[in-house]
Amino acid sequence: MKDQPQPAITTGALPASSKLYIPGTLHDIRVPMRRIELGGSEPALTVYDSSGPYTDPDADIDIACGLPAMRGDWQRMRGDAVAYAGRAVILADNGFATGERLTPAFPRALKPSRATPGANGTGAITQLAYARAGIVTPEMEFAAIRENEGRVTAAARDGEGFGAMIPDLVTPEFVRAEIAAGRAIIPANINHRELEPMVIGRNFLVKINANIGNSAVTSSMEEEVDKMVWAIRWGADTVMDLSTGRNIHNIRDWIIRNSPVPIGTVPLYQALEKVGGIAEDLTWQIFRDTLVEQAEQGVDYFTIHAGVRLHMIPMTARRVTGIVSRGGSIMAKWCLHHHRESFLYERFDEICDIMRAYDVSFSLGDGLRPGSIADANDQAQFAELETLGELTKIAWAKDCQVMIEGPGHVPMHKIKANMDKQLEHCHEAPFYTLGPLTTDIAPGYDHITSAIGAAMIGWFGTAMLCYVTPKEHLGLPDRNDVKTGVITYKLAAHAANLAKGHPGAQRRDDALSRARFDFRWEDQFNLGLDPDTARAMHDETMPKEAHKLAHFCSMCGPKFCSMRISHDIRAEAEKQQGMDRMAELFREGGALYIPRE
Amino acid sequence: MKDQPQPAITTGALPASSKLYIPGTLHDIRVPMRRIELGGSEPALTVYDSSGPYTDPDADIDIACGLPAMRGDWQRMRGDAVAYAGRAVILADNGFATGERLTPAFPRALKPSRATPGANGTGAITQLAYARAGIVTPEMEFAAIRENEGRVTAAARDGEGFGAMIPDLVTPEFVRAEIAAGRAIIPANINHRELEPMVIGRNFLVKINANIGNSAVTSSMEEEVDKMVWAIRWGADTVMDLSTGRNIHNIRDWIIRNSPVPIGTVPLYQALEKVGGIAEDLTWQIFRDTLVEQAEQGVDYFTIHAGVRLHMIPMTARRVTGIVSRGGSIMAKWCLHHHRESFLYERFDEICDIMRAYDVSFSLGDGLRPGSIADANDQAQFAELETLGELTKIAWAKDCQVMIEGPGHVPMHKIKANMDKQLEHCHEAPFYTLGPLTTDIAPGYDHITSAIGAAMIGWFGTAMLCYVTPKEHLGLPDRNDVKTGVITYKLAAHAANLAKGHPGAQRRDDALSRARFDFRWEDQFNLGLDPDTARAMHDETMPKEAHKLAHFCSMCGPKFCSMRISHDIRAEAEKQQGMDRMAELFREGGALYIPRE
Repeated sequence: MKDQPQPAITTGALPASSKLYIPGTLHDIRVPMRRIELGGSEPALTVYDSSGPYTDPDADIDIACGLPAMRGDWQRMRGDAVAYAGRAVILADNGFATGERLTPAFPRALKPSRATPGANGTGAITQLAYARAGIVTPEMEFAAIRENEGRVTAAARDGEGFGAMIPDLVTPEFVRAEIAAGRAIIPANINHRELEPMVIGRNFLVKINANIGNSAVTSSMEEEVDKMVWAIRWGADTVMDLSTGRNIHNIRDWIIRNSPVPIGTVPLYQALEKVGGIAEDLTWQIFRDTLVEQAEQGVDYFTIHAGVRLHMIPMTARRVTGIVSRGGSIMAKWCLHHHRESFLYERFDEICDIMRAYDVSFSLGDGLRPGSIADANDQAQFAELETLGELTKIAWAKDCQVMIEGPGHVPMHKIKANMDKQLEHCHEAPFYTLGPLTTDIAPGYDHITSAIGAAMIGWFGTAMLCYVTPKEHLGLPDRNDVKTGVITYKLAAHAANLAKGHPGAQRRDDALSRARFDFRWEDQFNLGLDPDTARAMHDETMPKEAHKLAHFCSMCGPKFCSMRISHDIRAEAEKQQGMDRMAELFREGGALYIPRE
Repeated sequence: MKDQPQPAITTGALPASSKLYIPGTLHDIRVPMRRIELGGSEPALTVYDSSGPYTDPDADIDIACGLPAMRGDWQRMRGDAVAYAGRAVILADNGFATGERLTPAFPRALKPSRATPGANGTGAITQLAYARAGIVTPEMEFAAIRENEGRVTAAARDGEGFGAMIPDLVTPEFVRAEIAAGRAIIPANINHRELEPMVIGRNFLVKINANIGNSAVTSSMEEEVDKMVWAIRWGADTVMDLSTGRNIHNIRDWIIRNSPVPIGTVPLYQALEKVGGIAEDLTWQIFRDTLVEQAEQGVDYFTIHAGVRLHMIPMTARRVTGIVSRGGSIMAKWCLHHHRESFLYERFDEICDIMRAYDVSFSLGDGLRPGSIADANDQAQFAELETLGELTKIAWAKDCQVMIEGPGHVPMHKIKANMDKQLEHCHEAPFYTLGPLTTDIAPGYDHITSAIGAAMIGWFGTAMLCYVTPKEHLGLPDRNDVKTGVITYKLAAHAANLAKGHPGAQRRDDALSRARFDFRWEDQFNLGLDPDTARAMHDETMPKEAHKLAHFCSMCGPKFCSMRISHDIRAEAEKQQGMDRMAELFREGGALYIPRE
């Protein structure tokens, strides 16, 4: 193990939290949850846990070994995949880095698996194929249990779901049915054996994705593995590795082997590196080889910009910001140069064949998404969306799982049309949007301009929200930016869950509000999405331990604390005759509280 | 001047910005604007400027002298007010602080003015009284010119206004008519002669308020004056001084004399200090005296919690977080203890008489606003809102200007009902909301949980958004928190303006997006709401001057910069046959781009 890079990653439980594992009933699985211990007479609260073994004090973490390959057995039991030698790593995979400049390979070489020829009749070993065959997989049960966050009974709910049909409790069969209908996906490459499966769909909790990845300009493997662990600690449900430049094959290996969440990539980025950054030099052969390379490593979903078609490119001519998707611009350049449809579009069938042999999910990229308020909801954007709908049908016919990427930059009054058109054109395949940013005028604060749009579109039905960090448009996010982006998007997703009427979502709000009203400061911190920051802010002005018991904070001080006064009011009312009784009297129209006019 | 405290306040222009003064046509006024110089062939952009003389390099700033008393002449010309000796400051006004503990009085003692008895028939010298009499005041023309942000022609617009009727250009007469209809207010105490008037109403730009103020626990006068200047530098349209504890009379004097924006207060806070913090000991006499004290100083609007009525208090009995408005909880405690309606409600007529003699606007407080998701839109909240509507009519009958305060904590699907009910019950008086926060689970990030709700309710019709800082629920905001809160709310208000279809709002987005597409980095920073932060974030990874000319940033690096590639695409297309021509061909259904199916 010596000489291997050993990134310092953050492990250990979150404050007042312990790991709880709920066993499956259909399958031999244990589903991780986070249990937050509370003070007073409050029961502990169980919440969704994306953080993986890193927050389990009993877990033995060694990133040079990777996480336990839990799903290996599941796949073996299905018996429809076969291990094989796999593609040999070539110099181009790591951008021709050698010697000191080469990030070391992950120490444990793993033999990849793929579908046995003609598996399940079509060669598909996807969750969609199983779902259609009526099979409830361990992945489905795992994801189902997670969704209930430890609840075993229905919870009070209200909300406006805009057609979402969220059950009181999610069953494995419900997950299966949603996947079979194309309304949900479980991104779960069979070669990502370390994965803790999760489900993305409109009738489940709204998920968030965090982008990490080095760029040619800055950052290293150590930083990227750390960012992944850091992102999931704060709640990222999936992570996209958008690395470019050198060493991306090896960095990706390190990330996947240590990731309990689905990893997404844009294979085009690596393909472009292999041709020295010259878009026109891209070929189907190089792209195809890259798909296989990454599928063998265990990437769970690929962004494929197959919706960018030649005739759409002139539609961007009068745009204020042109084409702002990296993948979209690369393919547009290729199309225009060669004056033909892209190999992504022309070879879409063959791409499906690769994807279904490993169960890599499609994330159909929105290469023509708007990059400014001015360009929102324009002809190019919606033309591509319609094409994505057509491609969805082709992928589904091949038993491939599909989600659809969405914008971008959209003012509030144009957001709902995005969701409505996506549902219509893409047949209810899950929507996965980047924000959208609701104004262009706040560089440095685009996590917030976009959280507004993200919360709204999540409410309207978007299944997963791709985070935006404060560094958007300015530079590569660092560790702090990643955390800020994740927490911001967790709160946006949660606001969406509340508004959709997701059963149980309000439990955490209520627990925190009760803690607030009871001056249980530690509980307020611990129930928050970021206990460390909340505690630090409180301690800035009231650092002493005794202050954690104070019935006020420095915001209003003791005399002006409305919550303290509210308690006085209740005590006074009880003394007088019982506040509930007073309320009854009022409701009955009793004489006591007849309004004086 | 020696021995006077001299807070270090921030002066000087914002980057690439200069001050522009637009003269009135009806009145002898000069209305400040900020002009942002841009590179390339871009014309300079003129934007709204709330920052006062502090950003004018030609202004002579001495906070011990205060700002120029511009409005003194305007009031003298109206001839309906009279200067008088004013109430003597007593020890209780400063919380009995003496000696070293006493904040020095503002050096220049000013004689207050009030309406001459029977002025304008009723004793009202309010903008509402003038508006109803058909008089276009200098205040109205000043506010009208500001709204147009230097535009002299209509601008392209789209949006959904939910009944707002925003004109292409705001005229002084339009401002007058909106005020006369009660749909807008100009908070402008005649004793705040330093004020640069602004208008608050649904048919104008959405405004934001920043709260400052010391608490019994921490902070000083120096800090509070600095916070005010700092808040308006970043865009606060009004500032509320919510100081409690000692020295609040003197601190307020310093703030008002140096404030170009309307100052709001909650007089109840000072009244409570005068009775040693014992709510039950409050009396009408003490409260009344406090109103006069603050009106003489020049406070522009008072939050008055007159809607909290005795019979409503039991409605809060089953709430998760009781009563969370400081003022609301104080009055509820008083009502319950004395078992009678509050003096605010019983003496509302007399309060109106004081307010209209100085033109202090009402901000009718929402003492029963919800403090948690669980309590949103409940019986107590809406019962109070109906009472606020009744009080609005009484105040209007007395020629008083009125706005209505709103929540608070509301999940997204319950926000619109708040706006709709407010419009209905309060007869279109301007709505002024605190957020609302769309979830309770993110202490430390409540500027963001609330920016989501603020942007939405601003879109729906709220006229002014009261900011929330990251410290909400945790402690007293410091300078950094104030800035974060202001910028966050500026972007939320702007997102609302865009969605409402406010003419001209998109100019700044478009200018910034063009700068982005053209790699004019300096322009991107300077057009943003916070140029300093944007620049600092960019410089973290690309600090050199040459990088400011780079056609990429560290986020994607040079090969993957979609904007750079978009330029390549346009160049390629031009070379081929002109991209516009290609677009034409496509639109004409020309053969060239027939989709290949």
